[in-house]
Amino acid sequence: MTTPPSAAPTAPGVAVIGYAFMGKAHSHAWRNVGALRPGAPGVRRQVLVGRDADAVAVAADQYGWAESATDWRAVLERDDIDVVDVCVPGHLHAEVAIAALEAGKHVIAEKPLANSLGEAEKMVAAARAARAHGVQSMVGFNYRRVPALALARQHVAAGRIGEVRQVRIAYLQDWLADENAPMTWRLRRELAGSGALGDLASHAVDQVRHLLGQEVTGVNALTETFVRRRAGADGPEDVTVDDAAWSTLRTDGGAVVSLEVSRMASARKNAFGIEVYGSSGALRFDLESLNHLDVALDGADSFSRVLVTEPDHPYLDGWWPPGHVLGWDATFTHQAADFLAALASGEEPAPSFEDGLAVQRVLAAIEESAAAEGRTVHVEAAGVTTEGVEDR
Amino acid sequence: MTTPPSAAPTAPGVAVIGYAFMGKAHSHAWRNVGALRPGAPGVRRQVLVGRDADAVAVAADQYGWAESATDWRAVLERDDIDVVDVCVPGHLHAEVAIAALEAGKHVIAEKPLANSLGEAEKMVAAARAARAHGVQSMVGFNYRRVPALALARQHVAAGRIGEVRQVRIAYLQDWLADENAPMTWRLRRELAGSGALGDLASHAVDQVRHLLGQEVTGVNALTETFVRRRAGADGPEDVTVDDAAWSTLRTDGGAVVSLEVSRMASARKNAFGIEVYGSSGALRFDLESLNHLDVALDGADSFSRVLVTEPDHPYLDGWWPPGHVLGWDATFTHQAADFLAALASGEEPAPSFEDGLAVQRVLAAIEESAAAEGRTVHVEAAGVTTEGVEDR
Amino acid sequence: MTTPPSAAPTAPGVAVIGYAFMGKAHSHAWRNVGALRPGAPGVRRQVLVGRDADAVAVAADQYGWAESATDWRAVLERDDIDVVDVCVPGHLHAEVAIAALEAGKHVIAEKPLANSLGEAEKMVAAARAARAHGVQSMVGFNYRRVPALALARQHVAAGRIGEVRQVRIAYLQDWLADENAPMTWRLRRELAGSGALGDLASHAVDQVRHLLGQEVTGVNALTETFVRRRAGADGPEDVTVDDAAWSTLRTDGGAVVSLEVSRMASARKNAFGIEVYGSSGALRFDLESLNHLDVALDGADSFSRVLVTEPDHPYLDGWWPPGHVLGWDATFTHQAADFLAALASGEEPAPSFEDGLAVQRVLAAIEESAAAEGRTVHVEAAGVTTEGVEDR
Amino acid sequence: MTTPPSAAPTAPGVAVIGYAFMGKAHSHAWRNVGALRPGAPGVRRQVLVGRDADAVAVAADQYGWAESATDWRAVLERDDIDVVDVCVPGHLHAEVAIAALEAGKHVIAEKPLANSLGEAEKMVAAARAARAHGVQSMVGFNYRRVPALALARQHVAAGRIGEVRQVRIAYLQDWLADENAPMTWRLRRELAGSGALGDLASHAVDQVRHLLGQEVTGVNALTETFVRRRAGADGPEDVTVDDAAWSTLRTDGGAVVSLEVSRMASARKNAFGIEVYGSSGALRFDLESLNHLDVALDGADSFSRVLVTEPDHPYLDGWWPPGHVLGWDATFTHQAADFLAALASGEEPAPSFEDGLAVQRVLAAIEESAAAEGRTVHVEAAGVTTEGVEDR
Repeated sequence: MTTPPSAAPTAPGVAVIGYAFMGKAHSHAWRNVGALRPGAPGVRRQVLVGRDADAVAVAADQYGWAESATDWRAVLERDDIDVVDVCVPGHLHAEVAIAALEAGKHVIAEKPLANSLGEAEKMVAAARAARAHGVQSMVGFNYRRVPALALARQHVAAGRIGEVRQVRIAYLQDWLADENAPMTWRLRRELAGSGALGDLASHAVDQVRHLLGQEVTGVNALTETFVRRRAGADGPEDVTVDDAAWSTLRTDGGAVVSLEVSRMASARKNAFGIEVYGSSGALRFDLESLNHLDVALDGADSFSRVLVTEPDHPYLDGWWPPGHVLGWDATFTHQAADFLAALASGEEPAPSFEDGLAVQRVLAAIEESAAAEGRTVHVEAAGVTTEGVEDR
Repeated sequence: MTTPPSAAPTAPGVAVIGYAFMGKAHSHAWRNVGALRPGAPGVRRQVLVGRDADAVAVAADQYGWAESATDWRAVLERDDIDVVDVCVPGHLHAEVAIAALEAGKHVIAEKPLANSLGEAEKMVAAARAARAHGVQSMVGFNYRRVPALALARQHVAAGRIGEVRQVRIAYLQDWLADENAPMTWRLRRELAGSGALGDLASHAVDQVRHLLGQEVTGVNALTETFVRRRAGADGPEDVTVDDAAWSTLRTDGGAVVSLEVSRMASARKNAFGIEVYGSSGALRFDLESLNHLDVALDGADSFSRVLVTEPDHPYLDGWWPPGHVLGWDATFTHQAADFLAALASGEEPAPSFEDGLAVQRVLAAIEESAAAEGRTVHVEAAGVTTEGVEDR
Repeated sequence: MTTPPSAAPTAPGVAVIGYAFMGKAHSHAWRNVGALRPGAPGVRRQVLVGRDADAVAVAADQYGWAESATDWRAVLERDDIDVVDVCVPGHLHAEVAIAALEAGKHVIAEKPLANSLGEAEKMVAAARAARAHGVQSMVGFNYRRVPALALARQHVAAGRIGEVRQVRIAYLQDWLADENAPMTWRLRRELAGSGALGDLASHAVDQVRHLLGQEVTGVNALTETFVRRRAGADGPEDVTVDDAAWSTLRTDGGAVVSLEVSRMASARKNAFGIEVYGSSGALRFDLESLNHLDVALDGADSFSRVLVTEPDHPYLDGWWPPGHVLGWDATFTHQAADFLAALASGEEPAPSFEDGLAVQRVLAAIEESAAAEGRTVHVEAAGVTTEGVEDR
Repeated sequence: MTTPPSAAPTAPGVAVIGYAFMGKAHSHAWRNVGALRPGAPGVRRQVLVGRDADAVAVAADQYGWAESATDWRAVLERDDIDVVDVCVPGHLHAEVAIAALEAGKHVIAEKPLANSLGEAEKMVAAARAARAHGVQSMVGFNYRRVPALALARQHVAAGRIGEVRQVRIAYLQDWLADENAPMTWRLRRELAGSGALGDLASHAVDQVRHLLGQEVTGVNALTETFVRRRAGADGPEDVTVDDAAWSTLRTDGGAVVSLEVSRMASARKNAFGIEVYGSSGALRFDLESLNHLDVALDGADSFSRVLVTEPDHPYLDGWWPPGHVLGWDATFTHQAADFLAALASGEEPAPSFEDGLAVQRVLAAIEESAAAEGRTVHVEAAGVTTEGVEDR
């Protein structure tokens, strides 16, 4: 069955490469982005791409795509595709994204940008070359589009908590806490790059840069694999990535950040918790309650719990009346809307591949420090900015 | 611009009548319902209907409908329409829904079923007549499809909190707290029927019936209008509906329910809070944190805070991995999915118009008691059941 | 063993009548009241009185009293006793308190003032007669001395939440939820007067008067006994008091209060929860977290969670640095301090016996309404004030 | 005015040296310890010692001591003193405690044990020598006696959260967040030893050892002074201690602990937060709500919020009925009770000076690591146990 696209022929044509978890979430975003506000740029949901022809056809139908395809390179040749949304596993990001940029397609790459620093640098080079002739790119740090976190950033930027001194950031999940959970490709270094570090700390480092508008200059770190062997299909196998990681980061603005990520934290599901302490206020957030932000602003002595659903809150104007909460999926819809708005206005979307690379450099420094008994590793200035059209 | 439908010609064709808040929310549901699971019945999003031709055309385009129209009666004549989703103001429910049923269309009517008991009774009669020849109907109490509340119902039904004795239920909003907020049609009895009572207490009464599987047999009540005059376009006008209402309800299972609804509760946005106390456990819910349910089951002495995002939780299997929260809008998507499943299986969808009438009778009794110094008013048994295909 | 008193001979001599739960709590207060601040009036902890000579001697030693005694009437004759603190069961309050006042002793009577309206009225008459010659009296509504509730009252009095419209107040405990819990004297009307009503609702009604500074003018109510027979020493016995009660109260300031009390609320231990909604703000409190007060003041749109441990918060100046929380027992210490301060200054302590009677009248009206199908029962104006030296 | 002691001549005679914050808190404990249970060993509250004769006399009277004194050495000579409770500033701990032990007095020393490792080692040597002839000693880590933390320890010891993998522990206060807060002796290294580290991290490290029953084997750390100059009496002065410190600790049981302490965390008052993640469960605690413990035991998937006020909870049997919360001060009363129980039974009280030294060694390692770019510093095994009569 073929589902026609849901927008005018002049709207950008989108292809999503990958139809697993992220492909499904991005499909949801493309399906809903046009509804957010009158006159917003619609999209043509052209094609969903995957390796298994039958499975991707079912998914395309289910998620509302006009077609499915198995050959992503052929899709890059099509004139009716303007945007390529890269939702494949991390070790394929560079290949697909670079080819798409070279084919003149605007690209969104899921986070983290790549599995290695080298790949990330090549992607940045490709993004810069493409940008020179108007082809745009973005890395998919969707949590920048949580309204509460966008509001948090506004408060920091407006000086309402003063000079930021301490950030506490932790991303805790429990899906590997059971030592009998089986081996997966995500626990093999050659496929996954790293463990909790790339998966979870990438979000955390991006938020530090986003919320503070500061760069990380140095790190101390420790990583640990608590369950070192797990049952594979043919017997026990070695786990070769981290289960958890800890780091302190220093920023060029003088702040100190403590970071902890784990997939072993029993009874925590998706607990991305952020606390920011400044000289005259503080902020507190938890992804499991993503519509709330606790704020102590302008010298306030206690936290006020704000339900971030008012029309003047970031990203909220296209949704429902106050008090009607959004889901996790809305972050991708906001991301798609911001990307389309950038394309329409000719501005550069953010976060850029350079932002993705900056995160990658911090992650690499964390691994280097962890391998060197935790001693300080300095992080090379990336020379990038986090400013861009995502500024709600 | 015409947006084609997003499903096969054999899928049910849907028309939504009304394109304001509820029309937008229902459009979101129809747009996303097909994505919830492979092989789920898709829909053709045919037509969005409203009085203002230009405005409804913009809305239809924005929300992803193939067409817009202004004459709802003409839409009822169309062969390509199988489902009519009634999102017009309450005083028009009866007229549109009855006509649609008589035209052989399956009908969803937004809650509350009607503004008056008389209208509701006519709607039930029409629904029964239609049902006799396979035409189905449902009233849109979407909060039955909050996963946490569906889970709560399962726990009660499984006896995990024992015999229910006390229910505390409150629905608190603040949008009328400011005495300078202007007059609106919602504050005129002839248009709105009632105030917080119909708007908020209808949800609350439906939840009592849904969670407990019991009927309300009698009520005592009080209503109040705190701000009796508000600024209208041509000077001060009388507010002729309640700002807040309080009631105690007795059920045929021996439980006592305290109910409080208000649109004057400063700093509360959409605080639909429910506490259920049984002989061996308790449950606690708050719509502002709708992904959580606090449970004390099987004699437990304290509340466990459950993030209701596991695959085995109700309604969750079509969504994201554990820990990724849903928004308020998902309740409508679940509602649409349940309705389509009922149509596909030939079962009767729930809650039925009879359920809607049962709620209406309780609301009428509350008004009667409030007018009679709070004395007990008995509620006529509706002879309906809350069981149906919404049983997740 | 005799424990000498812990203060100078010129300090007031105290006798506590009753050494069970309340006697122990009041003993704690008298033991610690002198430490709260330099120069505060100390007390001589003279005598603890009870019926069982051996048991009361052990208790007196344990709780730090100079002596124990069994004949409370003899204690009233002693010149070294200035204050009589009445901690006996409710049906004995009137007899002991009136005799003490007639003997010229200052009196604190535990709450509720009495088991019946008639007794309460006699106590008020005695208090008035005694007051005429400088003998003071107070009823022990200790929750007026929870710092967070004293702060709440200040906010209301200062107009920081505007005109109060709605109060939600519930006192929920679970110790009778188990239907196999045995019969006790507390479940017999002739001894206990009432059930949750006198025990829990008395606190609630006092808080309404205290927080709002308003009088209750009318009530509608319902009571229920869920478990009507319980196992006694010689077989099943009838429970003759309420397990739970519900009421709506109207005040002379135009507010409506919903009140619910229960000893059947599974998994709730001592959940005295209060919400106050005004025209420009709101307050929220829970006794299980008694050091916190949630405030939305001066039109604020969300609740700020205040840890009430700052030196400028009520009652805090004699304690610890900020952030060091107080226990439930501190409320009695504050009560004793306020009483001693009133004696020292010659002011009348508050809440007075008249305040206790005012509460009693509301409780009686609740019982009357519950017996009359919930219809409105008006409450006679008590002509008393809640103002007094407890005004922190 | 002389206040007589409140117990029998045969009860241990106590002297408290120091009458500031800690002297006041310990006085509260000695005043109340006898009331906790019938037959518990009472004490004679003999003498409060301080340098300012007038001030200490007022304090002694206020806090309920029989006498005051200015010469602590003379007090050590007295036969009526059995217990010396050392509440002087940290740099005097060693001198007073060692002299007291040598005089044959049982000693409690406030935490941290000393300002330097050298002093702590001398104190341990003195404690060992004294112990050989029955003279006991204890260091005052009072948070071991928070009922919720004692319960947490029981759960860990019983294996109810499995093998502990990760601990997150933070102690956050805000009293130095204001850069205009003036200079104090607490910010001078020569008097205070260190900043947040000694003051707050000492509690945290003790809890790690206490909760896990494991020793810290190595640390990585970072410290920071955000406000490096503050206004002194004669102009700006250098702050020579840390404002905040971060560390990861590894234990001999294979756990990794992240620790963060700060006195710059705006809007946090006394936020000592602890999270413990094991292979089959987790625990969560916050000192600002010290009567609660969140538990996920025996593989439970979510946290249950337990109000730790049941009679079978640690330390609760001498207090109030369920639901009546304790204050921060109760931890000292429990500490005194445990110490007296140890004296009475002849067991060694815990935590011992060796426990205090073990904490000190970790703090020293943290400082060493922080001075060495965060590289790993190993901690010498202290060869001590945390087991003792505090095992509730």
